[in-house]
Amino acid sequence: MEQIAFQDYYPDQLSYCYGCGRLNEHGLQIKSYWDGDETVCVFQPRPYHTAIPGYVYGGLIASLIDCHSTGTAAAAAYRAEGRPMDTLPPLRFLTASLHIDYLRPTPMGTPLEVRATVKEIKGRKVVVSAALYALGEVCARGEVVAVQMPENMAIPSDHI
Amino acid sequence: MEQIAFQDYYPDQLSYCYGCGRLNEHGLQIKSYWDGDETVCVFQPRPYHTAIPGYVYGGLIASLIDCHSTGTAAAAAYRAEGRPMDTLPPLRFLTASLHIDYLRPTPMGTPLEVRATVKEIKGRKVVVSAALYALGEVCARGEVVAVQMPENMAIPSDHI
Repeated sequence: MEQIAFQDYYPDQLSYCYGCGRLNEHGLQIKSYWDGDETVCVFQPRPYHTAIPGYVYGGLIASLIDCHSTGTAAAAAYRAEGRPMDTLPPLRFLTASLHIDYLRPTPMGTPLEVRATVKEIKGRKVVVSAALYALGEVCARGEVVAVQMPENMAIPSDHI
Repeated sequence: MEQIAFQDYYPDQLSYCYGCGRLNEHGLQIKSYWDGDETVCVFQPRPYHTAIPGYVYGGLIASLIDCHSTGTAAAAAYRAEGRPMDTLPPLRFLTASLHIDYLRPTPMGTPLEVRATVKEIKGRKVVVSAALYALGEVCARGEVVAVQMPENMAIPSDHI
């Protein structure tokens, strides 16, 4: 059975994120899935996502790790509650902190794979470790501290 | 006398960065300047640079802090050598690590100001601290470890 991406379960109102919102037509629209106890996301950088010529822009790498990790945090929180991602209430996470170590230049022209694991779930906080690979080599490692979005978080009324 | 942005001194071949390259027509084209011992960059997010509606995408914030900090590292390295940024050899920095703490949601619809200071210069490494402000409030803090790009760093020949 084909999996539905984590991001495709997000409510419409929370689907405009530049990194992962399926309704943001200018955005990256990344898709994340379970692969056993890991999660995986594959993304093909566009030709203009360059740093120095021939290599991928570090800010894109940070964005991929960030959004894949907050998606992973949400998926893991549903798993921990023993319920599927299309059940209510929706669980959605924000990034409290993001750390990236760039281990080697990431080559352009090949899909990037981000793999993540949950390091810790504690209350409303989920810590996610991620690694980004190109051509089978790890190019960056990241850690994201994600926190569950407050139920009453104000979304300005002109955006609803 | 009007200052020239740090990024406008980069050689053409190194000016295609998605975050700060003046020749990347799809990119952010940020501009960074000295302001005393600090550096400053002002950027107006585009309407699609959203996270949850009404707030700025964290990956954009990471990108702004990253590129402004590597630009700051370059400018500081020239200053430390006592020579202007248009003299040879060019000094250009890559990000070794990036850390961002998101302190509060960053509102859309207002220019963002990134201010940075050099924490340490040691050999080829420069550590930069940065803070991102919206409407006068600090919304994120970052630290970037930047390393000077090797002179012989291979740029694939189809990109020269």
